Amino acid sequence: MKLNCDLGESFGAWSMPVERDIMSEIDQANIACGFHAGDPLVMKAALDIAKAHNVSVGAHPSYPDLQGFGRRSMAMQANELTACIQYQVSALIGMADIVGTTVDYVKPHGALYNDMMKDADVRKTVMKSVVVIGQGKIPLMVQATSQNDLIYDEAQALGLSLLFEAFSDRRYTDDGLLQSRHIPGAVLHEQEALEQAKQLIEHHSVTTASGATLHLQADSLCVHGDTAGAVDIARQIRAFL
Amino acid sequence: MKLNCDLGESFGAWSMPVERDIMSEIDQANIACGFHAGDPLVMKAALDIAKAHNVSVGAHPSYPDLQGFGRRSMAMQANELTACIQYQVSALIGMADIVGTTVDYVKPHGALYNDMMKDADVRKTVMKSVVVIGQGKIPLMVQATSQNDLIYDEAQALGLSLLFEAFSDRRYTDDGLLQSRHIPGAVLHEQEALEQAKQLIEHHSVTTASGATLHLQADSLCVHGDTAGAVDIARQIRAFL
Amino acid sequence: MKLNCDLGESFGAWSMPVERDIMSEIDQANIACGFHAGDPLVMKAALDIAKAHNVSVGAHPSYPDLQGFGRRSMAMQANELTACIQYQVSALIGMADIVGTTVDYVKPHGALYNDMMKDADVRKTVMKSVVVIGQGKIPLMVQATSQNDLIYDEAQALGLSLLFEAFSDRRYTDDGLLQSRHIPGAVLHEQEALEQAKQLIEHHSVTTASGATLHLQADSLCVHGDTAGAVDIARQIRAFL
Amino acid sequence: MKLNCDLGESFGAWSMPVERDIMSEIDQANIACGFHAGDPLVMKAALDIAKAHNVSVGAHPSYPDLQGFGRRSMAMQANELTACIQYQVSALIGMADIVGTTVDYVKPHGALYNDMMKDADVRKTVMKSVVVIGQGKIPLMVQATSQNDLIYDEAQALGLSLLFEAFSDRRYTDDGLLQSRHIPGAVLHEQEALEQAKQLIEHHSVTTASGATLHLQADSLCVHGDTAGAVDIARQIRAFL
Repeated sequence: MKLNCDLGESFGAWSMPVERDIMSEIDQANIACGFHAGDPLVMKAALDIAKAHNVSVGAHPSYPDLQGFGRRSMAMQANELTACIQYQVSALIGMADIVGTTVDYVKPHGALYNDMMKDADVRKTVMKSVVVIGQGKIPLMVQATSQNDLIYDEAQALGLSLLFEAFSDRRYTDDGLLQSRHIPGAVLHEQEALEQAKQLIEHHSVTTASGATLHLQADSLCVHGDTAGAVDIARQIRAFL
Repeated sequence: MKLNCDLGESFGAWSMPVERDIMSEIDQANIACGFHAGDPLVMKAALDIAKAHNVSVGAHPSYPDLQGFGRRSMAMQANELTACIQYQVSALIGMADIVGTTVDYVKPHGALYNDMMKDADVRKTVMKSVVVIGQGKIPLMVQATSQNDLIYDEAQALGLSLLFEAFSDRRYTDDGLLQSRHIPGAVLHEQEALEQAKQLIEHHSVTTASGATLHLQADSLCVHGDTAGAVDIARQIRAFL
Repeated sequence: MKLNCDLGESFGAWSMPVERDIMSEIDQANIACGFHAGDPLVMKAALDIAKAHNVSVGAHPSYPDLQGFGRRSMAMQANELTACIQYQVSALIGMADIVGTTVDYVKPHGALYNDMMKDADVRKTVMKSVVVIGQGKIPLMVQATSQNDLIYDEAQALGLSLLFEAFSDRRYTDDGLLQSRHIPGAVLHEQEALEQAKQLIEHHSVTTASGATLHLQADSLCVHGDTAGAVDIARQIRAFL
Repeated sequence: MKLNCDLGESFGAWSMPVERDIMSEIDQANIACGFHAGDPLVMKAALDIAKAHNVSVGAHPSYPDLQGFGRRSMAMQANELTACIQYQVSALIGMADIVGTTVDYVKPHGALYNDMMKDADVRKTVMKSVVVIGQGKIPLMVQATSQNDLIYDEAQALGLSLLFEAFSDRRYTDDGLLQSRHIPGAVLHEQEALEQAKQLIEHHSVTTASGATLHLQADSLCVHGDTAGAVDIARQIRAFL
């Protein structure tokens, strides 16, 4: 089980906190590609730090929405979305090459990630966009749900590899999705997050909001860099691993 | 002697004319990378057409200035400019790979091109930005002037290859630069452009605004796609070649 | 019955055609405010031409989506959308004041317009955003449908005035909405558009795609400036009026 | 003597610190208008806080350069710059009206401010852009230098009012300009800033980097909100006033 974290989310004069500190605690950095965060200079800095810490890099493409930080769904045509994803991932691949590292997977960001998990058409567009990048050798990271098999079959049919991730610090619903952030308790406190991480690692399961036990097979645990105590949580999960 | 043309300069709902028609008349297409023109969808379409016509592709990066079409100088720090160029070129390289073609050279656009020719610091930044892309195998296209040797030496010292281009449809000054577009007669009519092209091809020289003969050694002739009769001019120069 | 047309839709180096020619044929110009088209210079030019032709000006705000020309729905929070609309309308009001004219109404653009007509929550947000601009004296232009009364009541409750518009060159469905542009025949040819305009003016009705007669009470007819023959159609409708 | 501070410099998901705390210590808030910082929602929030603290609002327009935070000079044509300034100021004026406050002056931001002080052509463009906003009743805030009279005469000839500001926390050169931030000691420590403020208030002078005494007549003192101890400095200067 790996630990992944969204990084490179500063822009111009504006900084997102944590960044540097968490890099030594994680295995995989999802680096923003300029459409929701991360200008070229920020991307390069994030790649440099990832390389220095020997952290694997994932491209973190988004809907084109800087002001909304990629958190607002946009009704893009399939060909628009495909070009938009391929542009971002390509930019990061090239800059990674300059810095002396590689892009090892693609993880969509924010609203695009949520839309991909909820909407089979969006998911198919994302999958078809990614499979042709780098001669099909770059896997797509998706959310581990109770439907892993379905999504695995979709990817398999296209020749695309997948990575499944679970969330240590978010409360799950019985259908294996995340509770909306607007619901009290949806974002777990440090101790709860640590326990959920342990349960995911030891038993490949989470306890949902209703108290049910849900099986979740994941390759990577997502930790958030922008929450209080994020570095601490990451460090403790890592120690546990 | 090759013919090159700036292409892929549409954006979203807005089209630049010509595009498709001129592709069959040129050898090299300088494709916009999204910072002055060319959204991801436009870039992909331009790459597709270039590939279909077996036209060599150059990346055409710009200052980040969509509203100004990259025609306004911006006082960017060297590291900002470097990241900005590398991001754009990387995005095009990746998309060219997806489409099944390659990026064969880099030609800066508009104000960045002019600043590169006038300002040795900007030129050095551009050169250092490009030489590390694609393991140093992608040449930079610069303007042929009476100072080719100086610029060649600068590039040589960095391990960078160069392509020199001349302009068929712009009036030259005695120092080998282009007359400002604001001066009447600076943009040549069709017949004049054709004659200047012939002189460049046969005698490696132009007749400047003052009537002097200026030696210009060029690898490629730039034709503009957005002027009246551009396709005609390109076709006639090509016939001549 | 007035004629209105979307204008000021150029951006930077890119021009939308028609613009100048249609201004003498219309009563109301819906001027883009910079978020889907229309940079500050384009807005000022459009205001100047509108003033010169004594054409009433409407603000034409959009989702923030230049690359998508405002044609893609975006899931904006109500407070985000409100600020976004008010910023755009305010910018145009101030520039109209500088040019020596006024903004007389607000007509949302593209996907925002469609969302407003389909979704009561979006419509309420738009209404509440507009009613506080200019001390509530600026009406909102909406689409005339068979539900004019419902929308009128919603506006009345907020103290907002409305203008209703109909479309001369688009085929209607039985429920008073526009057929999708993707359906063949959805965009009317010149002769059909002219007939639909006459029917709207004389009988306050349209013949829908199914052949039914639908009553539509409208204050203004929208003509499109970017379709072939747009100026001709506008001129003929005007002559008829 | 008033105290002014740049505010509303967050953007989307990114926050600039201080903001709220310093509002109670200042008289004038220079609010970003969306081109270097400050999206519509941020502008509205800043206007709300300014109103709640009875702080006068100034528009803080910039070159269009979000990624560079308006700190990079751009070679804009006069008509482009004029429209760009008027758009931004108009947007803030309209939103201030909605919030129930007013825009009382205009202070250009960053590179535009510096260019205005150094280049008489840029200054003339800025002056002519501002004097036609709000029927000429909105003054322009410029830097107090030893050349106040010259700039005053330029403004007078156009019918434009001026406000002069001095900097409490920046080291001056003998010609009344600010030392570059790149020179060590150019940004004053808390105690130095406080002393410079006192000297400006009591004696209308500063002690320059060379030790000379320079007379500076100012209407307002600029305090920076983003430096350590900014709120403290503002509070102490205010107490002194």
